[in-house]
Amino acid sequence: MELFYTPRASVAGGGLVIAGEEAAHIVTVLRRREGDALAVTDGEGALYDAVIVRATRTEVRCSVRGTRAGGGEPSRRVVLAASLLRNPGRFEMLVEKAVELGVAAVQPIVAERTVPRHGRRERWEKIALAAMKQSCRTRLPRVEEPADFRAFLASPWEEGTLRLIAHEQESRTTLPAAAPPGGGGMAVIAVGPEGGFSPDELAAAAAAGYVAVGLGPRRLRAETAAILAVGLLTFP
Amino acid sequence: MELFYTPRASVAGGGLVIAGEEAAHIVTVLRRREGDALAVTDGEGALYDAVIVRATRTEVRCSVRGTRAGGGEPSRRVVLAASLLRNPGRFEMLVEKAVELGVAAVQPIVAERTVPRHGRRERWEKIALAAMKQSCRTRLPRVEEPADFRAFLASPWEEGTLRLIAHEQESRTTLPAAAPPGGGGMAVIAVGPEGGFSPDELAAAAAAGYVAVGLGPRRLRAETAAILAVGLLTFP
Repeated sequence: MELFYTPRASVAGGGLVIAGEEAAHIVTVLRRREGDALAVTDGEGALYDAVIVRATRTEVRCSVRGTRAGGGEPSRRVVLAASLLRNPGRFEMLVEKAVELGVAAVQPIVAERTVPRHGRRERWEKIALAAMKQSCRTRLPRVEEPADFRAFLASPWEEGTLRLIAHEQESRTTLPAAAPPGGGGMAVIAVGPEGGFSPDELAAAAAAGYVAVGLGPRRLRAETAAILAVGLLTFP
Repeated sequence: MELFYTPRASVAGGGLVIAGEEAAHIVTVLRRREGDALAVTDGEGALYDAVIVRATRTEVRCSVRGTRAGGGEPSRRVVLAASLLRNPGRFEMLVEKAVELGVAAVQPIVAERTVPRHGRRERWEKIALAAMKQSCRTRLPRVEEPADFRAFLASPWEEGTLRLIAHEQESRTTLPAAAPPGGGGMAVIAVGPEGGFSPDELAAAAAAGYVAVGLGPRRLRAETAAILAVGLLTFP
C-alpha cells in the first residue's frame, strides 16, 4: 500500500485535494490518472479511500469513498527530546527512524555540549512526512524548533507523563524497567549530544522529575541511543 | 574511555604493537606519546591496559600492564542476515548500528528482490571495527561476504539456535515473543530487501526451521527493521 498525504483543511464535502509536490509525484512519477484509487491520510489519524476525479501536475482532486481510523500508532505517545548533532545527516536519520518507529513528536534540543546551535526544521518536517507515509502511520509527528535544554525541562506535560533521561552511566534502571513494554500514556525521553549531558544538566533534569535510565552496557552514539529508546518505548 | 584495536597476533611477550591507520591516528591525530596509557582490545574479548614505549606514525609499541576480560557483550549472540540495499549508505548505516547494538556477526544476503548483487566488504569491516571501538565492545563482529539467501538457509548452526525471519505481515508472533528479552544462546535473524522476501523464500525459510516474527504494526524500512531487531534481541 502506498499512502498519500493532504492536510485536513483540504478535505471537505465528500472530496479532497492533494497539491504541491505530492500532486506532482502522483501524476508525473507514479502516473496515476482519473479513476485510480488512492489511500490518503490527513496526518491527524484519518485514512481516506479516495478516487481521482481530476489530476494535473499541481493538483489532484479526489472523491472520498470512505473514511477509516488509521492504524500504525503505538499505545504509548513518545516525545523524543534529542540534542542536535555535529553531523546534520545523523540528526536527519534520527528523525526518520524515530518517526518510522512511532514517535509522536521530536523536540530538537540545544544542551551545554551541543555543538550546532540551530538546525533545519523544514528539512526535518519533510523527512518526518516521508517517514510517516513510508511506515503507514496516519498521525504526522511534529518536529519543533530547537529549544534550549534548560527551558525544555520546564515544559509542562499532562498528568502522569513519564519523564526519562538517557544516561550512559546509569546501569541500575534500564529503560524497559522504567517504562514497561506495551504500556500506554505519555513518555518524554531526553537524549544528549555526543559528549552527553553535563552533571549540572543531569541534576537539573532530576530536579524536574526526570528519571535517569540506561540503554545497556554498550556506549551508543547519540542517534543510536535515540533510535533504540524510541523502539523500546513504542514496541507493543 | 577511548578504545584502540590490534589483532591478537600483535600481542606477545608482555607487549603489543599497533600498526597501520590505527598507529597513525594515535600519533598524528591524538598526539599520544611515550608513557601515555592506552586501552587496547584484540577484538576477541580481551582488554589490555597498555603504556606506549615507542611511537612512530606507522607503529606504536606498548608494554602491557594488565589484561582484563572486556565487557559490553550481550548475553545472546545474534547473527544478522540482512539483504543488501539499493542505497549502499543505508546498508553501511545498518552495519554500524547493528555493531553498536551488540550483533555478533553480519551476513549480507542476496535475496530474489535484492537489487545490488554484490557489496563492499572491506568498507563494512572498517565500519564494524570503528563501531566496536566506539561502543566499547571487545569482540569484533565478523562481516561475511554476501551470500545467496537460499544457500544461507542451508547453513548449519549450533544446537538450540533460534532461527528467525522478519516478516511484515506476521502479526501473531512478535520478535520478543519468540526471543524473550535478556535471553542467552544464539539467534539468527533474517531481514529482507526493500520489497521483502518472496513467498517462495518465506516457504523455504519455514522449511529450514525459521520462525516468522513481526516487528510491530508500522511498515519499517529494511534497515530500520534490522536495527530494531538487533536492539530487541540484545537488550538486557
